[in-house]
Amino acid sequence: METQDPEPIFPQELRDAWPALSRDERVESFKLVPHATADDFFLSLSAQEQADLILALGPGERRTWLRLLAPDDAVDVIQATPADTRDALLRELDDTTRREVHALLAYAEDNAGGLMNPRFARVRPEMTIDEAISYLRRQTREKVETVYYAYVLDPQQHLLGVVSLRQLFQSAPDKRVEDVMSRDLVTVSEHTDQEAVSRLFASKSLMAIPVVDAERRMKGIVTVDDIVQVVQEEATEDIQKVGGMEALDAPYFEVGFLAMLKKRAGWLLVLFLGEMLTATAMGHFEDEIARAVVLALFVPLIISSGGNSGSQATTLIIRSLALNEVRLRDGWRVARREVLAGVALGAILGGVGIVRILVWQHFFGSYGEHAVLVALTVGLSLVGVVTWGTLSGSMLPFALRRLGFDPASASAPFVATLVDVSGLVIYFTVASLLLRGTLL
Amino acid sequence: METQDPEPIFPQELRDAWPALSRDERVESFKLVPHATADDFFLSLSAQEQADLILALGPGERRTWLRLLAPDDAVDVIQATPADTRDALLRELDDTTRREVHALLAYAEDNAGGLMNPRFARVRPEMTIDEAISYLRRQTREKVETVYYAYVLDPQQHLLGVVSLRQLFQSAPDKRVEDVMSRDLVTVSEHTDQEAVSRLFASKSLMAIPVVDAERRMKGIVTVDDIVQVVQEEATEDIQKVGGMEALDAPYFEVGFLAMLKKRAGWLLVLFLGEMLTATAMGHFEDEIARAVVLALFVPLIISSGGNSGSQATTLIIRSLALNEVRLRDGWRVARREVLAGVALGAILGGVGIVRILVWQHFFGSYGEHAVLVALTVGLSLVGVVTWGTLSGSMLPFALRRLGFDPASASAPFVATLVDVSGLVIYFTVASLLLRGTLL
Repeated sequence: METQDPEPIFPQELRDAWPALSRDERVESFKLVPHATADDFFLSLSAQEQADLILALGPGERRTWLRLLAPDDAVDVIQATPADTRDALLRELDDTTRREVHALLAYAEDNAGGLMNPRFARVRPEMTIDEAISYLRRQTREKVETVYYAYVLDPQQHLLGVVSLRQLFQSAPDKRVEDVMSRDLVTVSEHTDQEAVSRLFASKSLMAIPVVDAERRMKGIVTVDDIVQVVQEEATEDIQKVGGMEALDAPYFEVGFLAMLKKRAGWLLVLFLGEMLTATAMGHFEDEIARAVVLALFVPLIISSGGNSGSQATTLIIRSLALNEVRLRDGWRVARREVLAGVALGAILGGVGIVRILVWQHFFGSYGEHAVLVALTVGLSLVGVVTWGTLSGSMLPFALRRLGFDPASASAPFVATLVDVSGLVIYFTVASLLLRGTLL
Repeated sequence: METQDPEPIFPQELRDAWPALSRDERVESFKLVPHATADDFFLSLSAQEQADLILALGPGERRTWLRLLAPDDAVDVIQATPADTRDALLRELDDTTRREVHALLAYAEDNAGGLMNPRFARVRPEMTIDEAISYLRRQTREKVETVYYAYVLDPQQHLLGVVSLRQLFQSAPDKRVEDVMSRDLVTVSEHTDQEAVSRLFASKSLMAIPVVDAERRMKGIVTVDDIVQVVQEEATEDIQKVGGMEALDAPYFEVGFLAMLKKRAGWLLVLFLGEMLTATAMGHFEDEIARAVVLALFVPLIISSGGNSGSQATTLIIRSLALNEVRLRDGWRVARREVLAGVALGAILGGVGIVRILVWQHFFGSYGEHAVLVALTVGLSLVGVVTWGTLSGSMLPFALRRLGFDPASASAPFVATLVDVSGLVIYFTVASLLLRGTLL
């Protein structure tokens, strides 16, 4: 076993190199993968990679690889191809699978219906344990994706309960399925959002969850291995939105330069237009700046502190909402807590800011005769700006969710922009109150 | 089955209310959960919640619930309790489990050794299929967590191959295990990082991965249901770091106010100290500002555009590195692409900025006789600042990873701060080149 012939192409190496290969190189090297491991290699590709490869192969080979896929995976591959090739690909499937794939294509990709596999192991409640085990044994010959759980259905396909293989193996062979099955089961509907499905898997440690319709008729199962990908995709989307861009939906190097530019320019432009209000706001205080240029020096420091505390708060709440650790109705509780946190954080930064200005004044005389008043202005403004940043950053995701938007759209840069404009107003208002009669 | 007696407490409702309950309320309501569903309810709690509940229950009850847990889950619970209670809890376990838990406690929580379960289904290569199935049937009585795969071991516990239950069920009963087992299997070592393990699960659609030592002796298995939680935790950590704070490691409401403040104040202070350089930089250009106050008006617009484009780029690259879509060696390729993207994005924003200034000048005469030069200064600075922001934002995660840090520490606010200071220098340099002799 240790002494194998040298293989023309090692699957793991090819897998690593895959993203860097051109379409033709992929086809050529795929053909060099030894037959025995080609199946595993093909199944290790993402749906998009499988789709690209299948389209690049000749029609004869297409069928082999398409038919290797379970119906839910075939759906993902077909959805990843251009619309005008889909009918041709569907025709390559056998009749049963084609009907199943057709039905699955009707579901949105991001709900339980789009994730589910219509093939699952089933038993009848009145079977004995031994009958159930040998019945399951027969079903595995017909391409059931997982036999970890067997679902107990009545003749009208209503879901009555579930038995795990472990339960079947542990029970006395002459008991009946209905005596050992568990009736208290977690189910989802076809329309349950995939984020909700993944939260169920994360909290319950299940291998599979059955999908049922409104009459509790069983439609299929969602298995946990499909969920790992979903969780990663959802997290990637959230991270990209938090970072201030549209979700990319594909790996970095696989997105064309112009498509990527479009996804990034959109948000940057919106933020830029919002940020233009800072020029307007600064324009209102032009006279104050002309009289006391020293005020302008601290503008970047003050608005960025508001922006940073706002990004922190918004990121924290977005993730807590996504994981259901914080609910919509917790809004007031969060607000109270964040105001306190904001005042505390603002006081810390304000204190450091005051010390910085007084020390510089002492050694370099940087800020003129009214340095103490300038220091106070900066310190107090920081308390105000950081509190406001923290509060608005934490409340924005709630507001977005309440309006029906994705809370993750309250990206860190979006909050920073919002807080920049109001931060300027806070700063110059504090300045005109404290410095009137001296600098202003 | 549809007509059940009304239950004192419905598990699902209690599960939903759980985060909001006090310690005593949790204990009281847990005791009211009907015996038949209490097991499932307990298993649906997170390790931290299980640990809190177990500590709050009397010693007699502790044993029941601790012993319900598989060894790897017991380890998580014990790790979630204060260090001085751990010995007492270990003593509640039966001898075999205690030894296993002891061994597992030696592994770091975030590598494969810390995730693995030492109990798995095993068969011998020379067994017939029928012998293997009935041997597996016997093993499930000894608390094997999953029987989806059976691992084929020689007498020295070396891993030779794996058979899925589906393969056993499909094969002729008198064939031998070694004839049907698959020898080409994915394994990890005890020291494989959990992020690498979760990437394997995501790309390969497996239910379980065996953990082997350097001599390929089998130590345990990692199952996919444990990985869903890992993926979510890692994503949460990344999102929180991207948002500019230390990872919280616990749900929002379960972190004490002071602990949360500490995690947030640390980063904010670092960013604040960095941002103080903007005051120093602005100080260098104090004379220019005094002569042309109009320049100060665009400072927030310009530095925030650099910050926003930098956050975008850094977030994108952090996530691509985390998912291995981009490798460390792709640095130059990314740099070339991001410089182009930066110039394009900067040109778009610069163009819009020039139009905005000229339109305002036309209608309100806001920017004096040299408005065209001011517009050009702002436009050109935007190209420079956005390009620099995009490039440094995308390169910082590479630099951090190369230095051995977590790329996610290159948070959006961190990049924004870095770009703020250099953005000011770019802006005032462009201004002094373009405006010398007119405004300056």
